Amino acid sequence: MKVAILGYGTVGSGVGEIITNGETADVKTLCLAHILERKENLHLHPLMCDDIQTILQDDSVEVVVETLGGIEPAHTFIIAALSAGKHVVSANKAVIAVYLKEFQECAQAHGVKFLYEASCGGGIPWLHGLANAKRIDEIEEIHGIFNGTSNYILDHMAKEHQPFDVILRKAQDLGYAERDPGADIDGIDIQNKLKISSALAFDCDIPETIPTFGIRNISKEDIEYAASQHQKIKLMAEAVRNNDHFYAIVEPQLIDEGNMEASINENLNLTCLYGATIGPLMFYGQGAGKLPTANAIVQDIIDIQNQCSSAVFTPKVKMTYDTALIQRSYIIRATLKEADMKAILGDDLKQCFAFKGKIYYQTAKISAYWMHDKMKDILTQDKEAFMMGLRGVNA
Amino acid sequence: MKVAILGYGTVGSGVGEIITNGETADVKTLCLAHILERKENLHLHPLMCDDIQTILQDDSVEVVVETLGGIEPAHTFIIAALSAGKHVVSANKAVIAVYLKEFQECAQAHGVKFLYEASCGGGIPWLHGLANAKRIDEIEEIHGIFNGTSNYILDHMAKEHQPFDVILRKAQDLGYAERDPGADIDGIDIQNKLKISSALAFDCDIPETIPTFGIRNISKEDIEYAASQHQKIKLMAEAVRNNDHFYAIVEPQLIDEGNMEASINENLNLTCLYGATIGPLMFYGQGAGKLPTANAIVQDIIDIQNQCSSAVFTPKVKMTYDTALIQRSYIIRATLKEADMKAILGDDLKQCFAFKGKIYYQTAKISAYWMHDKMKDILTQDKEAFMMGLRGVNA
Repeated sequence: MKVAILGYGTVGSGVGEIITNGETADVKTLCLAHILERKENLHLHPLMCDDIQTILQDDSVEVVVETLGGIEPAHTFIIAALSAGKHVVSANKAVIAVYLKEFQECAQAHGVKFLYEASCGGGIPWLHGLANAKRIDEIEEIHGIFNGTSNYILDHMAKEHQPFDVILRKAQDLGYAERDPGADIDGIDIQNKLKISSALAFDCDIPETIPTFGIRNISKEDIEYAASQHQKIKLMAEAVRNNDHFYAIVEPQLIDEGNMEASINENLNLTCLYGATIGPLMFYGQGAGKLPTANAIVQDIIDIQNQCSSAVFTPKVKMTYDTALIQRSYIIRATLKEADMKAILGDDLKQCFAFKGKIYYQTAKISAYWMHDKMKDILTQDKEAFMMGLRGVNA
Repeated sequence: MKVAILGYGTVGSGVGEIITNGETADVKTLCLAHILERKENLHLHPLMCDDIQTILQDDSVEVVVETLGGIEPAHTFIIAALSAGKHVVSANKAVIAVYLKEFQECAQAHGVKFLYEASCGGGIPWLHGLANAKRIDEIEEIHGIFNGTSNYILDHMAKEHQPFDVILRKAQDLGYAERDPGADIDGIDIQNKLKISSALAFDCDIPETIPTFGIRNISKEDIEYAASQHQKIKLMAEAVRNNDHFYAIVEPQLIDEGNMEASINENLNLTCLYGATIGPLMFYGQGAGKLPTANAIVQDIIDIQNQCSSAVFTPKVKMTYDTALIQRSYIIRATLKEADMKAILGDDLKQCFAFKGKIYYQTAKISAYWMHDKMKDILTQDKEAFMMGLRGVNA
């Protein structure tokens, strides 16, 4: 089966490597036909071209791999490839989190597949596992550690007793974090993955907004406080469903040591689902990186070849956002005086304590929606304030 | 698609429940046609019969689910069903660990499928994940916690500070352990699962023998020693490959707290694989139990319905057992005098120490094969001796 790749960066070239060097029967039947790249790069590979029409008009190309990243021209090229009767496999979470429904409808209209395993959890067969689980169960909850960069930072702040900035620079030097780290540390990358995962898990439209609080403000003291409680701080994605109600958030959470979520080290990822008959089911592996992500793309291509793809979401359920579905106690570090916190949090402010010279506040069990909203007020008075949800024990 | 179930015990009746009550499109197309049971049970369900011929001669039955357990008549009935042109789905690890090759050859000869996801890891899509991973990668290693009963016992001995016998009785009262617990605590159940997983992972014949040491002899002091080292004891399955050489063992191992393997609590299971492009990939969930195991069986049936099953092993590689492939340091609790241990272990005996009134010995890094062999000598002099491999840190 002939494959064209759009964009030959880290992941795209990883797909090229696996197709070219792969020694299994499934991979040997694949053949690289074209690589779309910018004009200045065309000398790098004999199969490179800089005109999408070369690919669209080559009837022998059955699968187009989109690893351009970003919204445009990715969106236009995906629609053009599907409309030309070519299957499309994409790793581009940003464009899928916006256009998944359009891509799937376009694919169905043209009798081809749009697959996107690599967009969530890199090499982890997460969307595949989710799609299979819901062949039998209604998915009740999904959660996990969906971003390796932020997990690396949290893990190494704890291990090396260093502040955020030092570890972020180290992660950048190692290639684990981008020069502009916003998407990773502010939870935007996780938010996109949680949107895509929720749509597939719950068969609903992609949620437009998910309350998201990242780790940009985390301090050494926050990590030390967690350790003093035998807990770890993890940046968690979480979506909960109750019939046609659901809610989703991205936030740092305190997790008791000894739990699975607390044991995820380095830049690895964990993705979890719950269903009535399967119970808890979790997947752990490389959530990003050249070859793991390329592996997920090639798995999708082999599924197309074997006519066995399953990760299709059918938005048949009209979901209602229900802010009461996720509730927990929060711990907030802020320089605000107790009276000022009281003015924001009211009777839900339960406790104030000092730790290593910083002031922390603990709330009653409250709705995550409400807390994320109130945190905006707190940040207007202390732009370095930080909050973490008390998840505690799960297993 | 019409389904017949052989044996309506815990797992068989779970399959019946999911097929009867399932509300997803995939499950709704399934229909229960017959249940094979003993004569004295026939009044329990209107679909019950006590003659396998009723099922074999019903041409409308496309899939036979075998949940009888044990070797016979399971082996005879599976061959008869495949020979009658019916797909077979089995959860019976004991019979599969012996006859997998015969079952697959018989299925191929009759143009049907023999699937067995439920035989390893209960509800965890482990064989499915393994089969998909090897579409791209050569599998280099598999390991994990493949038995929930023994993990429950180890976890609760540590949490409740109680001896083995007390926790075993508790597990039996809760239904987590059989009245005759040998298969679970002596590692036989794990050995069968590791044989099946190795054959699929490495495309080799089922290994005939795997050195296996269980937890029957574990003491409170062993658990307390592990805790003093910030470690946990887990009963691990492990198989390692290097080209056409491989080795496999089942043994208790000491694992540093904070590692994934150490965080597996209660009766849950963890299964892990390593491949060149995917890196580490782990699956966690319910390794046994009525509905999780039934879920895995119904997943196999849906795969047959969708013509998408992949977990087929093709014994094309002639593997050589290589005892040098797995090497580590061991800690042994034994009442033998140091001179007697020296006589058995020679220069590989490195250290002797006391802990809570018990004598422990530590070896140099040695081959697992050799240690398992020497442990037989030690047990002739102290039948309550216990050994554990020092796995330490993995991630």
